[in-house]
Amino acid sequence: MSPYADRSAVTVLGLGPMGRSLAGAFLAGGLPTTVWNRTPGRDRELVERGAIGARTAAEAVEASRLTVVCVVNYDASDAILRQPAVTDALNGRTVVNLTADTPDRARDTAVWAAEHGIRYLDGAIMTPTTTIGTPHAVFIHSGPKEPYEEHRSTLDALGGTQTYLGEEIGRAAAYDIALLDIFWTAMAGYAHALSVARAEGVTARELAPFAKGIGAILPPIFEGSAAELDSGAFSGEGNPLTSAVSSMAHVVQVSEAHGIDAGVMRAAEGLARRAIGLGHGTDGFIRIAEVLGRR
Amino acid sequence: MSPYADRSAVTVLGLGPMGRSLAGAFLAGGLPTTVWNRTPGRDRELVERGAIGARTAAEAVEASRLTVVCVVNYDASDAILRQPAVTDALNGRTVVNLTADTPDRARDTAVWAAEHGIRYLDGAIMTPTTTIGTPHAVFIHSGPKEPYEEHRSTLDALGGTQTYLGEEIGRAAAYDIALLDIFWTAMAGYAHALSVARAEGVTARELAPFAKGIGAILPPIFEGSAAELDSGAFSGEGNPLTSAVSSMAHVVQVSEAHGIDAGVMRAAEGLARRAIGLGHGTDGFIRIAEVLGRR
Repeated sequence: MSPYADRSAVTVLGLGPMGRSLAGAFLAGGLPTTVWNRTPGRDRELVERGAIGARTAAEAVEASRLTVVCVVNYDASDAILRQPAVTDALNGRTVVNLTADTPDRARDTAVWAAEHGIRYLDGAIMTPTTTIGTPHAVFIHSGPKEPYEEHRSTLDALGGTQTYLGEEIGRAAAYDIALLDIFWTAMAGYAHALSVARAEGVTARELAPFAKGIGAILPPIFEGSAAELDSGAFSGEGNPLTSAVSSMAHVVQVSEAHGIDAGVMRAAEGLARRAIGLGHGTDGFIRIAEVLGRR
Repeated sequence: MSPYADRSAVTVLGLGPMGRSLAGAFLAGGLPTTVWNRTPGRDRELVERGAIGARTAAEAVEASRLTVVCVVNYDASDAILRQPAVTDALNGRTVVNLTADTPDRARDTAVWAAEHGIRYLDGAIMTPTTTIGTPHAVFIHSGPKEPYEEHRSTLDALGGTQTYLGEEIGRAAAYDIALLDIFWTAMAGYAHALSVARAEGVTARELAPFAKGIGAILPPIFEGSAAELDSGAFSGEGNPLTSAVSSMAHVVQVSEAHGIDAGVMRAAEGLARRAIGLGHGTDGFIRIAEVLGRR
């Protein structure tokens, strides 16, 4: 049977925790699923559940019209996809690369894909492995619309929300980078806060309910700040940059009094002071985004 | 009439935006409210609503058994409270200082208060001025329990949740510092993310719905990470530090490719790499809090 006979067959390259979750969701959706991983043996459980374990990446991509890639970064996906046998096998087929990397790597891959007659979409997974196949999964995609539409129903087996961000191939990675920026910076702030709290005799569990309260106020503040930035009107009323730096300086002071590295907050405070130095002391905090972007 | 006749009378020192909101909430609660501000004229609207505008800080604190202070920092509150006439007038009375500063400033003030027969509580306001007097306000307090209990019903006029954190006077400021650490670090990450997104042609409004999604996943992650840190078991399963630094490095790379300062993320990445260098690469991100606290 030609793989082209079954338009819903799917191949998954890369069987780390996320790749296994993706393949598991396709299997759970009843789709003929072929899997491959550079290090052998990772496919055992998936094969027991009905996946076809391919011996080579080329064999794997030949088995389906759609190949989903999820490896550690684009260096790793290039090392697989740009082998001549794999590149040849992909001709006329679609690759959805869910590997996280930069927008420029996606753009570079789009050039390579076009040169080899490969239909290529870039995507990003915004939620943990445990959400895959559930309503909580969040995927974003960018690239040519036609293959996205063709394979949309297959991708739907991954669950949750699939958002198509447009034809520009770097867009999914750009969103991904921005969201990772928010997430990991916030986590660094939280780790630091827990460390300072402990030095003050406050346990993580004692602080956590209040920390959750701070987490809960962020989404509406994110929304309001975004509107401010796009409009260019930076209202600092009630919370000007000058009062933010006063708080930030207190955090640095308490942290360093306990011998705890305050480098993250020092860098953040530096941005705020730079914006104040440019004359924006009465503006709201999000003025920093505009100042950062100046050339 | 002696002010002692009305146990619910309250004095507010400091009439910036927050002080005015506090005084307004006491007035709305029907409490006899005396107000004073270093710079005159700020009390006009409050006096129109029924507040007593005192001519001096000493006169203001004499008017009530409870004085609530909310100024820019403890330098400013010291400059008011430690004037001999004010200190004398406070003898036997209670001060709840809602001014934000460090735990050590609260401890130093407790020593001064004890020397002068002043009952002193430190507190912090965790929510914006607009929440004061509403169910959304969040206040924390620490210090001697007896004056807190005595004035609890007066403080309830400020609305929302009042949490007593214990006798140790520095505790409210310690929580405040830790929560400000989380908030301002997260905001710095968001401002940076918006700047990078814009450089990639993504507007703030386009990113905002996804940023809100990131904000929404933080509270449960905060809770889980706190439990990990207290237990000392750092499970990196599914998301080890090594994969966090890979994401962080991508953010730095894209940011700097656009000429956007990545100092905050560079500092955060440095903490993660330090933890990895200490042999914790397979642990979860919150291991950083433990590493930061090592002496």
